[in-house]
Amino acid sequence: MLQLYDKLLELPLFIGISTDELSDIVGQTKFSFHKLAADKPLVSKEEKCTQLFFLMSGTLRVVSYADSHRYRIEEELSAPAVIQPEHFFGLMQRYTKDFTAQTDCSLLSLDKSEVLRLLDNYLIFRLNLLNCISMQAQRMGRIPWRQQSDDIRQQFVSFLRLRCLTQAGHKVLRIKMEDLAHELHQSRLNISRMLNDLQCEGLLTISRGIITVPQLEKLR
Amino acid sequence: MLQLYDKLLELPLFIGISTDELSDIVGQTKFSFHKLAADKPLVSKEEKCTQLFFLMSGTLRVVSYADSHRYRIEEELSAPAVIQPEHFFGLMQRYTKDFTAQTDCSLLSLDKSEVLRLLDNYLIFRLNLLNCISMQAQRMGRIPWRQQSDDIRQQFVSFLRLRCLTQAGHKVLRIKMEDLAHELHQSRLNISRMLNDLQCEGLLTISRGIITVPQLEKLR
Repeated sequence: MLQLYDKLLELPLFIGISTDELSDIVGQTKFSFHKLAADKPLVSKEEKCTQLFFLMSGTLRVVSYADSHRYRIEEELSAPAVIQPEHFFGLMQRYTKDFTAQTDCSLLSLDKSEVLRLLDNYLIFRLNLLNCISMQAQRMGRIPWRQQSDDIRQQFVSFLRLRCLTQAGHKVLRIKMEDLAHELHQSRLNISRMLNDLQCEGLLTISRGIITVPQLEKLR
Repeated sequence: MLQLYDKLLELPLFIGISTDELSDIVGQTKFSFHKLAADKPLVSKEEKCTQLFFLMSGTLRVVSYADSHRYRIEEELSAPAVIQPEHFFGLMQRYTKDFTAQTDCSLLSLDKSEVLRLLDNYLIFRLNLLNCISMQAQRMGRIPWRQQSDDIRQQFVSFLRLRCLTQAGHKVLRIKMEDLAHELHQSRLNISRMLNDLQCEGLLTISRGIITVPQLEKLR
């Protein structure tokens, strides 16, 4: 139980909660516990968000798809993390990405009724959730107004960063060269040159339709 | 007072609240009342969000700026409306647009402490705010994944729609032709042809650096 306390305090939604309140929460809240073996799916794109999942240990593989399904991005999400809290309320209460266990994972989940109870009873939980969703809305709302780079390498880096859940770590972009050229409004030749330059610098590797970036934080 | 009741019920944050709860809210909440004469500013970009403003009657002029300040969009926001509720919590508790009275306006506002009290006491208000901010985060989060059009006219329409607060009504885009060409990754000549075509169809008017769209909903 002590371990659960410490883990919960690392989660963005429980940050700043006092020890007294936390023991109260742990005592009264119906957390469900889940173990997920490597390669087992947690939730899929379009599935309904009926529970709020907290990743307590392990790493999830997250796959995001373009609406046209012409490309997708795979990335890793390590504990502690909350799974798409911005889709728990609002009009689109469905996940927009696939989440699969990369390593063995342990998770906690809360039913909607339990989340509503926590929101009702604990000011800090309520503020943490409001802050968390507001930050998402604010960050995404500023994106259309950002300055566009003239540099094709910067355009590619922005393309990737904008679509990744986290801004660091291992990313795999599965896209055909012509689709990437189309997305960046560049010629196929220019795209191919830019990617080869990045490969020479050791920042990514290219094979048929797969661009692997070992550390997104190094790609600038 | 009866009029205030009816007006509040039209606001997204009070939708679905029962008459009993509403009379409770109106009785116990310290609403501030504001009259704003035409052309007077309400709040400016970068100003801190310390109050939640509700536009109860009249029309505001909203100006949004690109980060580079190379272009801006002016639009109108009519009552009833809430001013940037997604900036009331989170990391960036500042307005990102200028709001000025277009006509004489009347507004209500709530201090942060009053908003926190409403969130604490009224489930529906809490859900409405969570829904409202979640919808913003969801809508903006899907944008990078949308399919890009090859058609320059569609690209221009998407450019405008993506940056407008409302998807209908009168919009003014102030931008130099070369900056628009840069934003859309097109040649100046193609941009100029496309805009002239739209002007011929009566969908917009162009003058030096000013593109006026009388009804965005007609521009497709």
